[in-house]
Amino acid sequence: MEFGARRARGIDSSIEASKYAFIGGCIGTSNTYAGKKYNIPVLGTMAHSLVTEEKDEYEAFLGYAKANPNNCVFLVDTYDTLRSGLLNAIKVADNYLKPNNLPFKGIRIDSGDLAYLSKESRKILDEAGYKDTTICLSNGLDEYTIKDLISQGACFNSLGVGDNIAASCERVGGVYKLVAKEENNTISPRMKVSDNPIKTTTPGFKKVIRFYDKETGFARGDLIALNDEAINLDSYTLTHSTETWKKTTLTNYTIKELQVPIFKDGQRVYNIPSLKDSQDYCQKEYESFYPEITRLLNPHEYYVDLSDKLRNLKHNMILEFKGEEII
Amino acid sequence: MEFGARRARGIDSSIEASKYAFIGGCIGTSNTYAGKKYNIPVLGTMAHSLVTEEKDEYEAFLGYAKANPNNCVFLVDTYDTLRSGLLNAIKVADNYLKPNNLPFKGIRIDSGDLAYLSKESRKILDEAGYKDTTICLSNGLDEYTIKDLISQGACFNSLGVGDNIAASCERVGGVYKLVAKEENNTISPRMKVSDNPIKTTTPGFKKVIRFYDKETGFARGDLIALNDEAINLDSYTLTHSTETWKKTTLTNYTIKELQVPIFKDGQRVYNIPSLKDSQDYCQKEYESFYPEITRLLNPHEYYVDLSDKLRNLKHNMILEFKGEEII
Repeated sequence: MEFGARRARGIDSSIEASKYAFIGGCIGTSNTYAGKKYNIPVLGTMAHSLVTEEKDEYEAFLGYAKANPNNCVFLVDTYDTLRSGLLNAIKVADNYLKPNNLPFKGIRIDSGDLAYLSKESRKILDEAGYKDTTICLSNGLDEYTIKDLISQGACFNSLGVGDNIAASCERVGGVYKLVAKEENNTISPRMKVSDNPIKTTTPGFKKVIRFYDKETGFARGDLIALNDEAINLDSYTLTHSTETWKKTTLTNYTIKELQVPIFKDGQRVYNIPSLKDSQDYCQKEYESFYPEITRLLNPHEYYVDLSDKLRNLKHNMILEFKGEEII
Repeated sequence: MEFGARRARGIDSSIEASKYAFIGGCIGTSNTYAGKKYNIPVLGTMAHSLVTEEKDEYEAFLGYAKANPNNCVFLVDTYDTLRSGLLNAIKVADNYLKPNNLPFKGIRIDSGDLAYLSKESRKILDEAGYKDTTICLSNGLDEYTIKDLISQGACFNSLGVGDNIAASCERVGGVYKLVAKEENNTISPRMKVSDNPIKTTTPGFKKVIRFYDKETGFARGDLIALNDEAINLDSYTLTHSTETWKKTTLTNYTIKELQVPIFKDGQRVYNIPSLKDSQDYCQKEYESFYPEITRLLNPHEYYVDLSDKLRNLKHNMILEFKGEEII
């Protein structure tokens, strides 16, 4: 779940953050306005204020249970998770939920040692007969702390990620540059040159082709080629973009052109998918990469190659502008 | 100048980023929509595409000069800053701007070694008789690279900061918690307790007081106290929040209460200032801190203390909830 409203600079940014977090794979948001605007499932529990307002934690939980009889997720860490919050939640379940055939859906722990507290909570819940009661964890989680929780055997059914959602790719330094110009019915390539290779653009009207292993369906690499280039469908050798001695020859593959037309003759020809469809698409694409490529620590490098024709065009244009080649 | 539209996740976030960058001290934005919406000065130069579209850099600059005769800032790094861009800009100034009594306002360098290129460009411009022509630098700048440019004697009149604007305080983990409840005409304090001191809230209806040195006007420290506490105006000893042996006794000071009423009896009583007023306020507040506190490297710690009365309330409430004190 995405709990990140506060991570944004203002109202509009927080709505956008919720939208993209959902596309990226969150099952829902705590941002009620984003839920309303984009039809994203709204999820979460009570706030600490509900507990502190009442002063007596048991009374607070009981009031909450009476107000939300079918969706009781108690926030148990206001004063002391194991010695107070969890025990009061179970007491409300025993005294009110169970006798009324209402479900004790879950607890949320939002501070402290989540690995330890979740394992202890699971034991206590199970012993009290609440084996189906879920545990939700939150508190400064990111991809690394989540991995760590898993490796420590933490017991949880759901996670709320707030501040750190997509923190590692906070800023994408993407820019657009002119790469070609149509003149007298021909496409003339254009480029920006720099001593810094990353600021030197790749010229021309291009296409991007992804190679998939025919057996496993996994993506093997991408090729950026000129739009009118024919691609060999029997065998293709991808070259590492800088370490050119690193090559991999592909056989037994299928290919897919990744670009889709958005505008044609000044008209939009693309139908914007629903957020759910975008989410499904993201998940499918993510799963098409080998785990070696998507792992967090020392991931394997994914091949993105330029075709020989495109590489030559780029080098020749640099020579033309600079009188020498820049590597 | 703020050039950070692309740093945001979407249109709405980028507008908000421009707004807060302006409040924080930028003199303008390259985001034209933010300029329109918030009346922020819109600043910037041409894009690289204007140069690459024309293919001949001199012709591109000349066309730009004819279209914007009174505001010529040439982007000189498309192909080669010193051997091509700057020379073509000067050629346009010599052949077109000067003969027509038009100003050669400036150049912008957006790639390469900005310190070196700016110093060389300054020399070449001065020698060509364009001593008033300004130099604008951009390219992944942040507070550290800007400091570095200054220490290297880079020559610039303005800077454009894009991706990295406010990058170091990307996410402010601010939350709101219930701290008090009005019951029977008295204010009853509330708190959230945690083994993690940072998650343990400070209870009660509070005020924040800033102490200023009477001679210099610099802020000496803040005191968080209960709302109805009287503050000694002759001498006050601030204590470090965790290293309690560190104390500083203030005399000869003025004080200011930092909170202002926003709502009263359900009505908004606060007038939202203009962005320019907010910017001025920020600047004034920033300048009220000693440079030792605002410096980037190893800044001096600013004192924020709790009053004895508030500290005792907090500790006693923790004792009440936990049966022991948490440090």
